[in-house]
Amino acid sequence: MKLIDGKALSNTIKEEIAAEVKRLSTNKKRPPHLAAVLVGEDPASAVYVRNKVTSCEKIGFESTLIKKRETTTEEELLEIVRELNEDKDVDGFIVQLPLPKHINEHKITLAIDPAKDVDGFHPTNFGKMAQGLPAYLPATPFGIMTMLDRYDIDVQGKNCVVLGRSNIVGTPISILLSRKATPGNATVTLCHSRTQNLEDYTRKADIIVIALGIPNYLKADMVKDGVVIIDVGINRIEAPERKSGYKLVGDADFEDLSEKCSFITPVPGGVGPMTVTSLLSNTLQAYKDHFLTNS
Amino acid sequence: MKLIDGKALSNTIKEEIAAEVKRLSTNKKRPPHLAAVLVGEDPASAVYVRNKVTSCEKIGFESTLIKKRETTTEEELLEIVRELNEDKDVDGFIVQLPLPKHINEHKITLAIDPAKDVDGFHPTNFGKMAQGLPAYLPATPFGIMTMLDRYDIDVQGKNCVVLGRSNIVGTPISILLSRKATPGNATVTLCHSRTQNLEDYTRKADIIVIALGIPNYLKADMVKDGVVIIDVGINRIEAPERKSGYKLVGDADFEDLSEKCSFITPVPGGVGPMTVTSLLSNTLQAYKDHFLTNS
Repeated sequence: MKLIDGKALSNTIKEEIAAEVKRLSTNKKRPPHLAAVLVGEDPASAVYVRNKVTSCEKIGFESTLIKKRETTTEEELLEIVRELNEDKDVDGFIVQLPLPKHINEHKITLAIDPAKDVDGFHPTNFGKMAQGLPAYLPATPFGIMTMLDRYDIDVQGKNCVVLGRSNIVGTPISILLSRKATPGNATVTLCHSRTQNLEDYTRKADIIVIALGIPNYLKADMVKDGVVIIDVGINRIEAPERKSGYKLVGDADFEDLSEKCSFITPVPGGVGPMTVTSLLSNTLQAYKDHFLTNS
Repeated sequence: MKLIDGKALSNTIKEEIAAEVKRLSTNKKRPPHLAAVLVGEDPASAVYVRNKVTSCEKIGFESTLIKKRETTTEEELLEIVRELNEDKDVDGFIVQLPLPKHINEHKITLAIDPAKDVDGFHPTNFGKMAQGLPAYLPATPFGIMTMLDRYDIDVQGKNCVVLGRSNIVGTPISILLSRKATPGNATVTLCHSRTQNLEDYTRKADIIVIALGIPNYLKADMVKDGVVIIDVGINRIEAPERKSGYKLVGDADFEDLSEKCSFITPVPGGVGPMTVTSLLSNTLQAYKDHFLTNS
């Protein structure tokens, strides 16, 4: 079994981006600029956004964090989105989800200019991705594709099974894996809560991407020898032996599977760190597509 | 074996639409209006467009056919698209593909206002479809979903295999079948030219959608008893016994399969007629979404 070290790969890619930023922003041009909007006090969201901002600083991006109180109205947030859409000094921006319940998330996502949608959540980017056109890819699937690419894992023609059909992971990764591209060209089956006889699919799979949110769901007896496992789950489970009282585990039972698989992503330190890296890659791309080509 | 009679179903749905148009356009409101743009002299395209216009007339839609010469420039066509986008008397319009080679099809598709994109080819509609948001669905996949629905073919949890991953059929139908919706909730495998051991997939399938463009490709020994076959192929093959010298066949070998399958769409008279019907449904929907709600 070989570990797919998302943390190390993420650092490598960040260094590559930092070097490119240095090169591109020499001629008196400003560096790429990512803005993040955080509404409310959700502690997990605050950590995620802080992490994104810190990553920007480390690689030489400008970053702006816009923090708004929990009671911000939908109209106020839409106004912020409109201002960011217009702001020529911002290459890309994200509105951290989830939003307070009185705000319609779809409405906010649809208001973001697709050219600045570095989260890749806008339907226009999603559709372009599905149609094989250049697009800002959603962060987690983009990170997974990068891992497969950098670890030289052969995907073409392989039997890939994706477990979970969310809009941010399962559905887009199933599309990316089956696209006519490299990596890509896999034969993909998208499984979900309504799938019957799930093990009939997982036992035949050469590559499994699991994003169900169920701790240690995937076991060794559900897979074949040599399978590649990409584990998107991050679940907190009780661990009385630890000081904190809990630990993080994936959707795949790492210990049980470790003897049987050829590659596996650990949790934490696998897919997670790649997600922020994808956001930075998209922002760099937006900077090149719009700022550099127009200035 | 039961035949899925696309021609009859198409007529039924057209009658339903005609009745709705009659009901909606009483109060001095104009009926729905579809415009079609045809560039050049391709005879097949001319037939398709004429067919669409005739269908409009039969069900009480207004229709406009804009015919332009082969040498029309990309800029001239973009100007026509812009005018149709602005025209409040047009609810939806299509630009018939393929276009002459000097015109970039993607550029034209992207210029169409997604709110009038009744072909469902614009990335914004494609992305909304994939994300489960209301959208104008691409005509052929929409027609297939309607067939499955009206013939009460249970899709949920079923093993569906889609052969072919084009942007207009294979990829979108794979998305629609696996969506959390009714019909939908199937476990879908998208197969294509790079798939290895294709028969391993087709032999397990409860439902097969085939859109490869290879005459009589799918044979009885590749499927299991009771399979449902949706045949999107329309291939012209030589038939010396006929006056015309040719006949139309699908991608599935109808005769060979007829004993083994539970349902099958014939070619011609299966998926084909449903495609125009979907376009009319989308136009009616656009009329309701924009004209009726704003007047």
